[in-house]
Amino acid sequence: MPGLIECVPNFSEGRRPEVVDEIVHAVGQIEGVTVLDHTRDETHNRSVVTFAGSAEPVVRAATAAVGRALELIDMEQHVGAHPRIGAVDVIPFVPLGTTRLEECVDLARRFGEQVAQRFDIPVYLYGDAALRPERRRLAEVRRGQYEVLRDEIGTNPARAPDFGPARLHPRGGAVAVGARKPLIAFNINLRTDELAVAIRIATAIRESSGGMPAVQAMGVLLQNPGMRPMAQVSTNLVDWERTGIAEVVHEVRRLAREAGTEIDHCELIGLAPTGALLEVAADTLGLADFNADQALELRLARDR
Amino acid sequence: MPGLIECVPNFSEGRRPEVVDEIVHAVGQIEGVTVLDHTRDETHNRSVVTFAGSAEPVVRAATAAVGRALELIDMEQHVGAHPRIGAVDVIPFVPLGTTRLEECVDLARRFGEQVAQRFDIPVYLYGDAALRPERRRLAEVRRGQYEVLRDEIGTNPARAPDFGPARLHPRGGAVAVGARKPLIAFNINLRTDELAVAIRIATAIRESSGGMPAVQAMGVLLQNPGMRPMAQVSTNLVDWERTGIAEVVHEVRRLAREAGTEIDHCELIGLAPTGALLEVAADTLGLADFNADQALELRLARDR
Repeated sequence: MPGLIECVPNFSEGRRPEVVDEIVHAVGQIEGVTVLDHTRDETHNRSVVTFAGSAEPVVRAATAAVGRALELIDMEQHVGAHPRIGAVDVIPFVPLGTTRLEECVDLARRFGEQVAQRFDIPVYLYGDAALRPERRRLAEVRRGQYEVLRDEIGTNPARAPDFGPARLHPRGGAVAVGARKPLIAFNINLRTDELAVAIRIATAIRESSGGMPAVQAMGVLLQNPGMRPMAQVSTNLVDWERTGIAEVVHEVRRLAREAGTEIDHCELIGLAPTGALLEVAADTLGLADFNADQALELRLARDR
Repeated sequence: MPGLIECVPNFSEGRRPEVVDEIVHAVGQIEGVTVLDHTRDETHNRSVVTFAGSAEPVVRAATAAVGRALELIDMEQHVGAHPRIGAVDVIPFVPLGTTRLEECVDLARRFGEQVAQRFDIPVYLYGDAALRPERRRLAEVRRGQYEVLRDEIGTNPARAPDFGPARLHPRGGAVAVGARKPLIAFNINLRTDELAVAIRIATAIRESSGGMPAVQAMGVLLQNPGMRPMAQVSTNLVDWERTGIAEVVHEVRRLAREAGTEIDHCELIGLAPTGALLEVAADTLGLADFNADQALELRLARDR
């Protein structure tokens, strides 16, 4: 599996399951692509499909998904809580295994250009694939959403697309295409019901308040029927090679002890890169010279 | 990568590198097979090749290796320290990823029958693929080695092969074909130079002296120039789903503390199943409901 890449397109449709099913079907039909997940949110009126494969089939599947979505979704009819600029709102490419982020950057740019041409739709590059520095932030690309972009795209040079026409697609709006590292959603549950402790720890570790790089965190109180309330530090690790799971756990453990409590257990939400988990094993065992290639299946995946 | 299987044939040739290279080449030529490792031992006059793939290419590669070895190795000329019965002495099939041992048992039996027929060579099934219970142990199959088997194969019903003729192949002798679980070679280095401590711990944890199931262990003293001597508990975990790395480390840590010392660090020798390492991560993090499928690349490998 050389150059394994994940693609996580978001679609502006979360209320008609049959539409989402058709898009998932279009992706799943492409040989060499594995659909890993799909979720549909009625409130946001939005869906997320996760699939992976090597570059070529992933591009083919993403193209098929765009084609199907442009047939089935009409942005002029769309309302929902989540900010969006188009029927296929955002298409990030994510490196897996030994694939480098740069490969996804290249892929996103090539794909963006192809999609703009083929479907006559404006494309904005964001994240690590951005060509304009201010477009690294997706929020900037989506400023004012579909409705404002419709007015500004042809008149405001700052809103001109990176590829495609300087007007929205009649039904599909515009597409943001990008590259980013994989994200790990990881929660640490504490042996306390004091929300304040979780909030204090979250604030101490998150990058935005001067904590650990590439860590997002918030404190929440878990309240499940029949169980004692439990304070939780809920984190997103947006670049585990900068700050990994083990580092976050060490720091949260230290801060929890300072606050007179302990980590009870952790939760991994969804999928995580295998390398990020192997790093935890290597850290625990104090493995000298450990290399993720020593994990048989990963080694094989790299060579195939 | 459905049904990923590892194959680790041992050849009775360790002194002529060109012969080993030719065998490795024959294996590497088969599409869908990855050569993971090969080692050559002059003293034992023996080589080991490790490769993997799905069932069909692995069988094709193993067959190619047998064919090449029978052309290039003559058992009548072979001397060496390691017990052996043939030019291709032993061919174990090992389940990787989500492959079950039973699939390797079936494969070993089918392969054994094919090889016996195609090359007119006697084949003995051993390990989990054994058809006679006493042949589960490879040592039993190899009793008296090539020289004794040559005399007994045609006359002693207890030595009759499972497949093929009741006489040795003129140059290649006989082949033992089997199935086994993957083996993890794992060492735990202690912060002491007392060999006796390592020996005591090794004796306490190994199955043969009443310790943990599927654990082999011995105590050794590492003496490297320029470094302090270090006592080591050297282990083989022959069924990590029965006794895993984390369990062994917990127990060795406990025993080391009882002896007034600590684990310094651990070493993983060669490759290990990814699942065995993920188990360590899940244990460390106290991950609730962790599933190896949450490791992205493994999940993908399973589905492809």
